[in-house]
Amino acid sequence: MSKPSATPKTVSPFSVTTGPLPSSHKIHVAGERHSDIRVPMREIALSKTSGEKPLCVYDTSGPYTDSAAAIDIHRGLPKLREAWIRARGDVEEYAGRVVKPEDNGLKSSDREAVREFPHVNPRPLRARPGKAVTQMAYARAGIITPEMEYIAIRENDGRISPRLERGSAKDPRSEAGDKKPYQKGESFGTRIPWLITPEFVRDEVAAGRAIIPNNINHPESEPMIIGRNFKVKINANIGNSAVTSSVAEEVEKMVWAIRWGSDTVMDLSTGRNIHNIREWIIRNSPVPIGTVPIYQALEKVGGIAEELTYEIFRDTLIEQCEQGVDYFTIHAGVRLPFIPMTASRMTGIVSRGGSILAKWCMAHHKENFLYTNFEDICELLRQYDVSFSLGDGLRPGSQHDANDEAQFSELKTLGQLTQIAWKHDVQVMIEGPGHVPMHLIKENMEKQLELCHEAPFYTLGPLTTDIAPGYDHITSAIGAAMIGWFGTAMLCYVTPKEHLGLPDRDDVKAGVIAYKIAAHAADLAKGHPSAHRRDDALSKARFEFRWQDQFNLSLDPDTARDFHDETLPAEGAKVAHFCSMCGPKFCSMKISQEVRDFAATEREKGMEEMAEKFRESGGEIYQKVG
Amino acid sequence: MSKPSATPKTVSPFSVTTGPLPSSHKIHVAGERHSDIRVPMREIALSKTSGEKPLCVYDTSGPYTDSAAAIDIHRGLPKLREAWIRARGDVEEYAGRVVKPEDNGLKSSDREAVREFPHVNPRPLRARPGKAVTQMAYARAGIITPEMEYIAIRENDGRISPRLERGSAKDPRSEAGDKKPYQKGESFGTRIPWLITPEFVRDEVAAGRAIIPNNINHPESEPMIIGRNFKVKINANIGNSAVTSSVAEEVEKMVWAIRWGSDTVMDLSTGRNIHNIREWIIRNSPVPIGTVPIYQALEKVGGIAEELTYEIFRDTLIEQCEQGVDYFTIHAGVRLPFIPMTASRMTGIVSRGGSILAKWCMAHHKENFLYTNFEDICELLRQYDVSFSLGDGLRPGSQHDANDEAQFSELKTLGQLTQIAWKHDVQVMIEGPGHVPMHLIKENMEKQLELCHEAPFYTLGPLTTDIAPGYDHITSAIGAAMIGWFGTAMLCYVTPKEHLGLPDRDDVKAGVIAYKIAAHAADLAKGHPSAHRRDDALSKARFEFRWQDQFNLSLDPDTARDFHDETLPAEGAKVAHFCSMCGPKFCSMKISQEVRDFAATEREKGMEEMAEKFRESGGEIYQKVG
Repeated sequence: MSKPSATPKTVSPFSVTTGPLPSSHKIHVAGERHSDIRVPMREIALSKTSGEKPLCVYDTSGPYTDSAAAIDIHRGLPKLREAWIRARGDVEEYAGRVVKPEDNGLKSSDREAVREFPHVNPRPLRARPGKAVTQMAYARAGIITPEMEYIAIRENDGRISPRLERGSAKDPRSEAGDKKPYQKGESFGTRIPWLITPEFVRDEVAAGRAIIPNNINHPESEPMIIGRNFKVKINANIGNSAVTSSVAEEVEKMVWAIRWGSDTVMDLSTGRNIHNIREWIIRNSPVPIGTVPIYQALEKVGGIAEELTYEIFRDTLIEQCEQGVDYFTIHAGVRLPFIPMTASRMTGIVSRGGSILAKWCMAHHKENFLYTNFEDICELLRQYDVSFSLGDGLRPGSQHDANDEAQFSELKTLGQLTQIAWKHDVQVMIEGPGHVPMHLIKENMEKQLELCHEAPFYTLGPLTTDIAPGYDHITSAIGAAMIGWFGTAMLCYVTPKEHLGLPDRDDVKAGVIAYKIAAHAADLAKGHPSAHRRDDALSKARFEFRWQDQFNLSLDPDTARDFHDETLPAEGAKVAHFCSMCGPKFCSMKISQEVRDFAATEREKGMEEMAEKFRESGGEIYQKVG
Repeated sequence: MSKPSATPKTVSPFSVTTGPLPSSHKIHVAGERHSDIRVPMREIALSKTSGEKPLCVYDTSGPYTDSAAAIDIHRGLPKLREAWIRARGDVEEYAGRVVKPEDNGLKSSDREAVREFPHVNPRPLRARPGKAVTQMAYARAGIITPEMEYIAIRENDGRISPRLERGSAKDPRSEAGDKKPYQKGESFGTRIPWLITPEFVRDEVAAGRAIIPNNINHPESEPMIIGRNFKVKINANIGNSAVTSSVAEEVEKMVWAIRWGSDTVMDLSTGRNIHNIREWIIRNSPVPIGTVPIYQALEKVGGIAEELTYEIFRDTLIEQCEQGVDYFTIHAGVRLPFIPMTASRMTGIVSRGGSILAKWCMAHHKENFLYTNFEDICELLRQYDVSFSLGDGLRPGSQHDANDEAQFSELKTLGQLTQIAWKHDVQVMIEGPGHVPMHLIKENMEKQLELCHEAPFYTLGPLTTDIAPGYDHITSAIGAAMIGWFGTAMLCYVTPKEHLGLPDRDDVKAGVIAYKIAAHAADLAKGHPSAHRRDDALSKARFEFRWQDQFNLSLDPDTARDFHDETLPAEGAKVAHFCSMCGPKFCSMKISQEVRDFAATEREKGMEEMAEKFRESGGEIYQKVG
């Protein structure tokens, strides 16, 4: 469904998906410290007869699901953070870098590039000389930014009004009507407070345990946080390639991915028009955008890794910093001495960035220029608040290669680089594998925490077997759920097309849903204080045969409803007190509801006494039979 | 694709899927102790230019994928075990129970039933008076049956010829060309020998740690074993219901499920024609068939649980024993004192069988008749070698209810019943949940091993979150992989339609593939000695751009090939040394192959020295930069 553009004079060359999810509407929770904060959440209304309150859930989808919002992708989203950024008084406008043909992969101007975004800002922001404009710098200085307060409210899922956040004498739990704490999870050292406060956010960012990827040139973004003491996040990769894809598809993929719950989006484009496509995506993205700048740098040297130079790479970083990319994958840990360690592998180096740098190192027999210039990169990123996503260029590409010397040597290096970045107040997360059998997953998390000083971990899956191409959203959701439970802060999705082709719209959705499942299962297992609410609400709806509520509470209401309709299409079946599995006379949920009613009658007391008696007897339950 | 019937005079009312999977053919490995054993396996041929040997994999699909087999579903499969059963001299033919209209859910004969299977055997087998004809009885008597030898060969995946099984002085590993042991798994007490011998099978069955579900009246079945010291198995549920489905669909669902790897199939039919549909399924099934007999018993009393009697139930057991059902789910642990324990649950009793029995107990205020008659049931089952699958009628139906008092009280009872069954030489496995958050999964396995004396565990998932109806094959594959790793012997699949509707053909396949992934990931993590071979072969093919080999080695070659063709349909792309993700110039696998070649040249020595030097320096890898 597509909404008409708010500026009807501009005819859109393509449309994006808008409108709320079923039975949902956008609400905004106001800030307290910062009065102009309006944190969007999704409220799912339940059937009136149920007597259940609406459920408020975390919402990544931005204005696209707000029926009150006017969407015009030619203008981009409102710059909600702009005033906050300027109010800090530490940034300056300047004449940005001039876009060159090669930024779009064009040798000369004779080839037609993708249409330029119509409102490119020619004067980007950067830090004033000597200033660090990163959330980490503010956090360390004891400053609670509007971004931090926004995140605190957002992470609490509307369980409590911000009014109660500070100095309330009341127990917030009873205020939130959620007295009974959920069964405790096993958290492996994760410590999630019952309520997230702005001060807690500040403290986690200052310690490097969490990052807020928020380039000052991406003021359209709704602040979010990546850290193991917060909700587990997911990332969706999009991007054209030399072989296929177009700008229209890519922007819609971003909108589509966040509609289903992606917390960040990485643009992995490698073909032509990279610069322009990225501009369209960033200006329309309410979530942080990540990139792998070496991909674009390689395009600029005609795909020949040996011809890369740090100057070309640095120029590409500036180009992307000015556009507003929020985090960069930088493969600075692919060091020359580690490359021979991969020679005995089953599948060598499978990271694209890692293999480019390995090739460069081998050709020049020199140390990786990202490693030797790391402090210069830090100095650049701190001027825009771009976060590092330190890439695992030597991640395993098969079960066989998991947890080997090359992988862990690189991880140790990434930990050392983390400390250097922190010295410059630059935020850091660490990328992780890949392909790992279940019994070797925990070691990845433990080593990462130890070697990388609790910087957030960001893993690709991992895939727990290699034998199911076409289903790697599943092979990897298993590993992702586990490593998320163990402490990984963000899970990079894998789509069914992994290893086979480029994901289309359906694949993006399949990947996002599989990863929302993994992230949520991890939150439940960690004992996140609000995770269980959605499970409980949906299970209660299921038990009470509130079919519409069950659909609307699910991660994908459309599919749930369609699947139900395939078997029992009649509208009446959605209010029936039975389901298609058993039919009217023979439904376990119906019977057990009867059991419950029955137990509430006079017999209950007698039954309860029997159970009591049984408990008193020490639980010896088997009596001689037959 | 459907093969013409071998008896062309009979026009088939429906066809089933036949023919080998791509690049595969059926081989048969001969037995040694029992010369008439021919164990089917699937051999996947790899491309000639690769120089790789074919990979032999476990094959559940029966004669349907054997291009040499003549399939006639009106005649049923060959009775491969019949001679073995009769040769033991402990069975007798007798005049079987006469089929009644109510067996098919018909009140009188005026309604047309599903067509009867044309070759119903009127004289089933049972044990001679006083004899136990169970594999457990033989195992305990020290007898290695043909079934046991068959299983030993089958579990070794053709890694070794049976000739080497006994008394070979050679190290079987070097003989099998598989010298390097795979990285060790973490097995949680599972002990899988490098080679499975018939004696090992016997010992595991004698100890009750594994079962061979093989009703003497299902001689068509290819013996298989369920136990944690063997490959993890999966089950697919099929079955019509009062609302929908037909016999044609059900038989094809069975054939379809085993084509993709289901090790057993449960027929959960609840509507009319139950008896006839089951006969069609069993006669054509090379895998064990399980049922929940209380479903049919309930049909016989018009769906009114209170009207059930043990006599009706027992008569139903005899009916199904004579047909050849291999294992029965029996909810004998749903005891009267446990029922009130469920009153405070979020979702009460969600097991169909459990709720029926709870209702009966409440209505009569009596102990569960399956519990009070348990020894009589044992006596019946030992005459046919039907295995118990002791049902978890009180399993949790939501995350909220996981691991509660009701669930574990029942589990303890199942452990006590296990010992009674073993007293009668009857084989037992134990059913488990259900809905369990990740952090509570391990407790299920540990308690089951302890309370049920290491009888095999057979779980439904478990689902690790409740919020994704439409995707419960994924929510549950996560839990299934984990509990399989921890020691569960068989995983009951969940399809995308769970909670929403009846699975169709596509759903059955989606469920089976998700569960093959879970079972295989578990085998890898446990360190099963042959599990890694398929991952390695596929990863190697992937690395070497052998696209066709990658497809053919995957769990679902058709889908892998289709997905690849969507992006790069040209036939030439399947031999190209690049893939659609990166394009020709920019492929990480291509580059890393170049890196490997490069490392093999003169520079290698220098590089190796550098790495050595690095190692000697104590691994201190960061040098001051910038």
